[in-house]
Amino acid sequence: MKSEQDFVNFLGKLKTYDKKIIKGIGDDCSIISFNGNKKYVLTTDTSLLGPHFTKEYTPEEIGYKCLATNISDIASMGCMPLYAMYAITLPKMSENWIKKFYKGSERLLSKYKISIIGGDTTRGPLSITIQLIGVQKNKILQRNGAKTGDNIYVSGTIGNARAALLLATKSEGHKYFRKYLVNPTPRVNLGIEISKFASSCIDISDGLAKDLKNIAISSKKGFSINIDQIPIRSKFDKYISSKHKEECILGGGEDYELCFTANNKYSNKINTISSKFKLNITKIGRITNNGYEYLLDKKAINIKSEGYDHFKK
Amino acid sequence: MKSEQDFVNFLGKLKTYDKKIIKGIGDDCSIISFNGNKKYVLTTDTSLLGPHFTKEYTPEEIGYKCLATNISDIASMGCMPLYAMYAITLPKMSENWIKKFYKGSERLLSKYKISIIGGDTTRGPLSITIQLIGVQKNKILQRNGAKTGDNIYVSGTIGNARAALLLATKSEGHKYFRKYLVNPTPRVNLGIEISKFASSCIDISDGLAKDLKNIAISSKKGFSINIDQIPIRSKFDKYISSKHKEECILGGGEDYELCFTANNKYSNKINTISSKFKLNITKIGRITNNGYEYLLDKKAINIKSEGYDHFKK
Repeated sequence: MKSEQDFVNFLGKLKTYDKKIIKGIGDDCSIISFNGNKKYVLTTDTSLLGPHFTKEYTPEEIGYKCLATNISDIASMGCMPLYAMYAITLPKMSENWIKKFYKGSERLLSKYKISIIGGDTTRGPLSITIQLIGVQKNKILQRNGAKTGDNIYVSGTIGNARAALLLATKSEGHKYFRKYLVNPTPRVNLGIEISKFASSCIDISDGLAKDLKNIAISSKKGFSINIDQIPIRSKFDKYISSKHKEECILGGGEDYELCFTANNKYSNKINTISSKFKLNITKIGRITNNGYEYLLDKKAINIKSEGYDHFKK
Repeated sequence: MKSEQDFVNFLGKLKTYDKKIIKGIGDDCSIISFNGNKKYVLTTDTSLLGPHFTKEYTPEEIGYKCLATNISDIASMGCMPLYAMYAITLPKMSENWIKKFYKGSERLLSKYKISIIGGDTTRGPLSITIQLIGVQKNKILQRNGAKTGDNIYVSGTIGNARAALLLATKSEGHKYFRKYLVNPTPRVNLGIEISKFASSCIDISDGLAKDLKNIAISSKKGFSINIDQIPIRSKFDKYISSKHKEECILGGGEDYELCFTANNKYSNKINTISSKFKLNITKIGRITNNGYEYLLDKKAINIKSEGYDHFKK
């Protein structure tokens, strides 16, 4: 066991006992039917000083981002977030810090009407684990439904979070990208809308290349991506050298945009959704029978980015 | 905000948005109805090196105890545990450590048929947050139903975990008490059985005095406890001096026994349950209109133990 993926595979092999588990380990969320027709999705994510936020983040920003990343997992399943549990480890009890932290979360709690239903506090190195439960609105989106010939889409622009990390904290470029790193927007409404017809979906948390591979592996398919078509912000090339571009857009992670697949017949519908939400939705490639192909100027290239893994450097 | 209780109170005042939340913050678990008749209970607990386990614990023992303490919260609500999510922070990815850790959990997972439905791993200081979901079998037990005149009962023997902590690691006394500290037995079957008639219940995690006070505050009642009747192991007095006795049995915590209240008419039933489960259930006092009274040799005494709080020393 050397990577997070090995760990996920290990967990996935553990015995489960219950018929209400529609999906256990292996997607952004697990799916449970509880009682009745509506299914629920469940996710948990830990945020730590270091990999997830730095000392330069304000408590509000930490409170926002920890919840946003969990909401993004619910969004990628096409579901609506409902209930959160906060397990917080703090070096010392600071009323000021906690109130600011919750103020940061509050923006998202009120926007999506999420209720905090439980919590635990312990004393130790700063760490926040949030568990979030969501409910299905239409179909539940999973990683495993992509079909050969389906188009591959991404929302928003890609690579901003890594770009912010690469640039010096006080630089003009860092300021240009920082809000994408610190205040990512989970695509809840988009997820719900596309869940009516998309064949698979994932949120871009570990880097587009790795997340695409997860769709391909789960769907037992391949893909072909046009790197030139991956949407970037207008001043991206001004601040990021061509040497670091691939790292940002394919290996970066923390974009929290949605990457999804859909049959070509939904192209117009996707354009309509894009207009409705005033959000770019860009076709970047298509699903193939097998293999992972990256095209630059129509030529296949080898990429170096493997995406983020907490246990690799 | 100076204590965990202040934090819980703060969380309890946050807005909730959903009618399916039967109980939010303020008990061992929250209660959600989802769909249908059966209600579910949810809890989360973080375990850290230091307050919850030491370097002397084996990975198996950590894997056992982290899950046992969460199951105990479900047991105190009279419910059956079903689904677990593991959020684990590890200094390095060690296959050996993880497999041993899960072997420790596995004893409880298979005993209660609990399925692990999700997880997250990150790299950092060792920390384990488990979220556990359980389902109601009979009535759901809460802290707030105690009535004046109800008897107060505890299961098993009290004070063993703190006794183990007080005694030197290699001493005979530590060995006598250690299994209670490291391998507590969550009282799931007892919780389910008493949920048919008990008026309130809590698990003894923060110390009997503090946990009793939580029942009293939630039920808007008082209590009178006979300290002499609090059940201890046969050799307790051999290893623990009278000076430390109160600290162990009233302030200790980590007993994970159940403390519950019931009308006197259920006395015989409780004796039958005690025989059936081969588990001591001892009457230690009764619920009063108000005030917290501790009797020793029939005389009221003042106690010093406030119970465990992560943010007080």
